[in-house]
Amino acid sequence: MLSGALGLGLLSQAVTPVLAAPTVQVFDINITEPQVLTAQNGWCKALLQISSDYASGGITKAKATAAHVIDQAYAFQFGPVAFKPTLTTGKQTFRTTRAGALAYFVGNDSSFPLDTGFALTPWRTCKVVNQVIQLNGALAITMGNVILSDATGNLTSVDKTWGFMKEPDGSVRIILHHSSLPFKP
Amino acid sequence: MLSGALGLGLLSQAVTPVLAAPTVQVFDINITEPQVLTAQNGWCKALLQISSDYASGGITKAKATAAHVIDQAYAFQFGPVAFKPTLTTGKQTFRTTRAGALAYFVGNDSSFPLDTGFALTPWRTCKVVNQVIQLNGALAITMGNVILSDATGNLTSVDKTWGFMKEPDGSVRIILHHSSLPFKP
Amino acid sequence: MLSGALGLGLLSQAVTPVLAAPTVQVFDINITEPQVLTAQNGWCKALLQISSDYASGGITKAKATAAHVIDQAYAFQFGPVAFKPTLTTGKQTFRTTRAGALAYFVGNDSSFPLDTGFALTPWRTCKVVNQVIQLNGALAITMGNVILSDATGNLTSVDKTWGFMKEPDGSVRIILHHSSLPFKP
Amino acid sequence: MLSGALGLGLLSQAVTPVLAAPTVQVFDINITEPQVLTAQNGWCKALLQISSDYASGGITKAKATAAHVIDQAYAFQFGPVAFKPTLTTGKQTFRTTRAGALAYFVGNDSSFPLDTGFALTPWRTCKVVNQVIQLNGALAITMGNVILSDATGNLTSVDKTWGFMKEPDGSVRIILHHSSLPFKP
Repeated sequence: MLSGALGLGLLSQAVTPVLAAPTVQVFDINITEPQVLTAQNGWCKALLQISSDYASGGITKAKATAAHVIDQAYAFQFGPVAFKPTLTTGKQTFRTTRAGALAYFVGNDSSFPLDTGFALTPWRTCKVVNQVIQLNGALAITMGNVILSDATGNLTSVDKTWGFMKEPDGSVRIILHHSSLPFKP
Repeated sequence: MLSGALGLGLLSQAVTPVLAAPTVQVFDINITEPQVLTAQNGWCKALLQISSDYASGGITKAKATAAHVIDQAYAFQFGPVAFKPTLTTGKQTFRTTRAGALAYFVGNDSSFPLDTGFALTPWRTCKVVNQVIQLNGALAITMGNVILSDATGNLTSVDKTWGFMKEPDGSVRIILHHSSLPFKP
Repeated sequence: MLSGALGLGLLSQAVTPVLAAPTVQVFDINITEPQVLTAQNGWCKALLQISSDYASGGITKAKATAAHVIDQAYAFQFGPVAFKPTLTTGKQTFRTTRAGALAYFVGNDSSFPLDTGFALTPWRTCKVVNQVIQLNGALAITMGNVILSDATGNLTSVDKTWGFMKEPDGSVRIILHHSSLPFKP
Repeated sequence: MLSGALGLGLLSQAVTPVLAAPTVQVFDINITEPQVLTAQNGWCKALLQISSDYASGGITKAKATAAHVIDQAYAFQFGPVAFKPTLTTGKQTFRTTRAGALAYFVGNDSSFPLDTGFALTPWRTCKVVNQVIQLNGALAITMGNVILSDATGNLTSVDKTWGFMKEPDGSVRIILHHSSLPFKP
């Protein structure tokens, strides 16, 4: 037991430790389920806002709102967003840039001639129904449906995947958005 | 409002959505604070077990226990662990391999001649006092003190940093361990 | 400069440091772009294998291969996979369980009556065309197209999002898979 | 092969896919080894700058520089930093706040009476020798030595663990810093 005794001797120099206050401080970089739900609801609210602003102020107002929404809700300032909107096709299926996203939401961009402005529809309600939520550090993935109703009461359900990134300051932005109409057999 | 109307027409094909059951399934890859505390307490228990096994069964028993502990508690099977034990110095300060860790805990390895076997001391109690816990996805970092008492009642406090990694199957292993005696002015 | 001098005095006890060998060991938990591409190609190969095994050995052989593929390529053993296959609809749109994924690939499961067995088609080629790859630690997200050809030479392109998780032992598994037919205006 | 044929029929509606440009865009959130080395060297340069500014401009200049360094190099604005400086002890061992870090580097704070100002020493050189670098997404952990020389040529080596966090905009900040004098047998 020589070695153990030696170890003890060395350590025993430190007696009666004076410790700092034992309050544990937690620095949590992870995104939480409530933060994910808030971000999803924020997307719905933003869509309805653009739609409402289009009705009250026309394309100019709608475009300004959409630009603000995109800057706040999507991470285009940090890198290419993986964005496949519901109604895009062909060479313009994927919208990895801010301009492509803006064109999708409010149209009126000659570079994206097929875009009619998804958010210009008179949407009235927007509801998220999640099937899976995956929490991976500051990144969350969700899959489920988004159900929209318009001014005539029509219901539309889309299959929706989102990826959300939380930044160190708590901001949450979309880095992934894959939306598709339900498969029709 | 032509574009909005067009968008509506396309989407309105899908009415009265039939959704899957709305129970959200969560796949949480993150490590939690309770999992961190369990891993820390597990380290303390393991240290006392090695010490106890040394008393009851000598170095053979202690070494077998230590080897098992290291395989379960440290991530050497996946990569170099950042391990700076309390009582190492010079060229053998850092123990980034399984052999180096084992030598530190139970000594008796001619490749590490200065090692006396930290876990062979007759430790009686081991307590963790956290100051900071940082949760980063599957990785957690903790900083604080570990306070040990030995058979003579001597108290030793060390400054301790740990990094814990949670694997997808829920196992938690140490990837970082920096321990140091308190600075003496 | 009293304080600085004092600091110097304390530190100057340590002279001529004897350091460990300066070879840096790197423990890289992150998934890389080549690992992502390998996983994608592996998915294509697996699909063609199931299809080929169905032609040569019928549903029994195809089902055995598909079960093996799912266990190797999807992370169902760790949590709910976010899986929206191309051809699913209604209450069975999302396949968050192993059974649901197996039914999608090879059909013949009375619990999933609409499933015809996506992998039973005589697929001949499978190619991945990526638009965006996002690397987030051990998690990667990809978005783009998968282009399939069948025995008659027909080409099918689907819009595809994948999420891949790398485990500490280097295994890469799918945790997210959203596939959809191109939007038809 | 009924089911396979059915699947084929559904998919064969999509022929001759028109794809977006096949240039892959990569959004890499991970921290890299070069970014880690840059951050480490930045810490050394900052230490020498504070020391130099103290010599040329006294405590006022040194304190201003140190405050700027701390805001740029440490993540106190986002949460508690796990900081155990080399020369702290007792209740003030851990410096999880900006004020505590500033006091350690430049002293002259009555709330931290034992602090003499580590950075006020006339440091001349600062070199990092890494033993282990661990890359975990946006988080990196390093362990090794930092070797300092002062105006009299004395060499000091400390055992050093750092944790660096990369933010989405590319900024790299310290979230973990455990420094200790070498163990003296």
